[in-house]
Amino acid sequence: MIAPLAGEGARDLRDDAALISPREGLVVTTDSVVENVHFFSDDPVDTIARKALRVNLSDLAGKGARPLGVLIALAWPDARPAAELEDFARGLAADLKEFDVALLGGDTTSIQGPLVVSVTALGVPFGATTPARADARIGDDLWVTGTIGDSTLGLNALRGEPFFAGARTYLVGRYRLPAPRLAFAPTIAAHAHAAMDVSDGLIADAAKMAAASNLAFEIDVAAVPFSPAARAWLAKGGDRMSLLCGGDDYELLFTAAPEARDAIVSAGAGVGLAVARIGRAVAGAGLIAPQGGSTAVLGHSHRLGR
Amino acid sequence: MIAPLAGEGARDLRDDAALISPREGLVVTTDSVVENVHFFSDDPVDTIARKALRVNLSDLAGKGARPLGVLIALAWPDARPAAELEDFARGLAADLKEFDVALLGGDTTSIQGPLVVSVTALGVPFGATTPARADARIGDDLWVTGTIGDSTLGLNALRGEPFFAGARTYLVGRYRLPAPRLAFAPTIAAHAHAAMDVSDGLIADAAKMAAASNLAFEIDVAAVPFSPAARAWLAKGGDRMSLLCGGDDYELLFTAAPEARDAIVSAGAGVGLAVARIGRAVAGAGLIAPQGGSTAVLGHSHRLGR
Repeated sequence: MIAPLAGEGARDLRDDAALISPREGLVVTTDSVVENVHFFSDDPVDTIARKALRVNLSDLAGKGARPLGVLIALAWPDARPAAELEDFARGLAADLKEFDVALLGGDTTSIQGPLVVSVTALGVPFGATTPARADARIGDDLWVTGTIGDSTLGLNALRGEPFFAGARTYLVGRYRLPAPRLAFAPTIAAHAHAAMDVSDGLIADAAKMAAASNLAFEIDVAAVPFSPAARAWLAKGGDRMSLLCGGDDYELLFTAAPEARDAIVSAGAGVGLAVARIGRAVAGAGLIAPQGGSTAVLGHSHRLGR
Repeated sequence: MIAPLAGEGARDLRDDAALISPREGLVVTTDSVVENVHFFSDDPVDTIARKALRVNLSDLAGKGARPLGVLIALAWPDARPAAELEDFARGLAADLKEFDVALLGGDTTSIQGPLVVSVTALGVPFGATTPARADARIGDDLWVTGTIGDSTLGLNALRGEPFFAGARTYLVGRYRLPAPRLAFAPTIAAHAHAAMDVSDGLIADAAKMAAASNLAFEIDVAAVPFSPAARAWLAKGGDRMSLLCGGDDYELLFTAAPEARDAIVSAGAGVGLAVARIGRAVAGAGLIAPQGGSTAVLGHSHRLGR
């Protein structure tokens, strides 16, 4: 909605983050989480605070930046026990410490309605520029960090789908507490052409990157990395497309020149993060399966429900 | 609530804005407006956007900074007509243009509840440092820009209190569309010791400044500037304290050395803004009426009602 108003510095808001100016080199981004839209009312309130922070740090990682500080605007429901505010603050404090982020500002208001946490994050880019969604080049490899689909399985678990005991804890953890890939941000800065974090589902976000870059991605679906828990779920008949289209992965999706392959893989190994090459950028539009069939781009809804 | 978590750069969040670092010289601030708390459901939606922006620009003016850009996180109610989103965007665009502010980022989510607009503003200070609430010195004059109490009268008008025709439009306008005193920001940077904008009422905000600075303000209540509309209302028996304690003035409250008096008055005249000297900083605590009686600090609620 705000797209028609955006200026050049914000990349017309078609990107996750804005670079204020090359000279100042500050990356800024904002994302909100809303009760019953992005989290359940009965999610532990400390994880709500931490997730709100982490999804913003993930945006910084996707721009190859290290976090500098955040501002948090909180609309706290009249109906929610005040004691929970302490849990919220405790969760936030733990994550600010863990990720070495300063709290630069805050505003708390009451609301006769759901809890809303709006976070603005400021970061300093590791590189002279930051990779945009629109910067993929034909011939680039397409890469993704970590594993895909765990978070949507965690959401399914919260909605009541049974999982074998150990997996449920892992999967719900992936949904409630995404891990921003900040350790990989220097590699993004050094090697990525286009980059973004995966928040709306791998398929939807890859399609956005392709569209922004005016090219197509040929995606080798068999190369998309899944966790042991997700593979076990697939082995029991789970639908792979639901993993590819689920949201909240908060992994990094990026393109780079083929010459950078070795550097990317060893950089990932250096920080204990698997990085998978899942396709390449070609002339055309949209997403293409290697067999030549067109991969359907499915809509993804952030609306919760159980 | 977030105060225990704040770092030094944010002045422990006891201030309206944070200076990220003297070297980078960037002022950041965040403030939200929530439906039924800070505005009425039937307020024109373009003014909701503009007020959300302006209250943040007012914070920058209070720090002696010029606006650089803003990020806006919007929780848009499912129940609100989508057409109003265009009015919102139009209002926002008009003000961004008027105040020469870049939109650096945005996030729109749905909400099953009230409209929430969270704005983060970034500004560049005119001076080498920015005045904090805590920087008042004994012997300083206490100043305020513009006129006090119009906004609370506008709120009364929206709640149904009758005003003579012309005044109602002016007063409601003051409530819905505060005028951030950005033209006065260079003067704040040049002369103010302590400074802040008046959002919670003159009395409450002066008390906060006194407490933060570990001193008292002797306030000459007769010197507080009122508009012709407010004076007419007082002449009909209105209560002066309700003007002094009402909120949403978005004038600038600041202290400066007596030597700066002429410079401050002529700077105000130069930008068409009246500036009134309403008291001085003395040893002690709280607010003191010149007669020696202690001025009660009344609580101010942002909760709407009509």
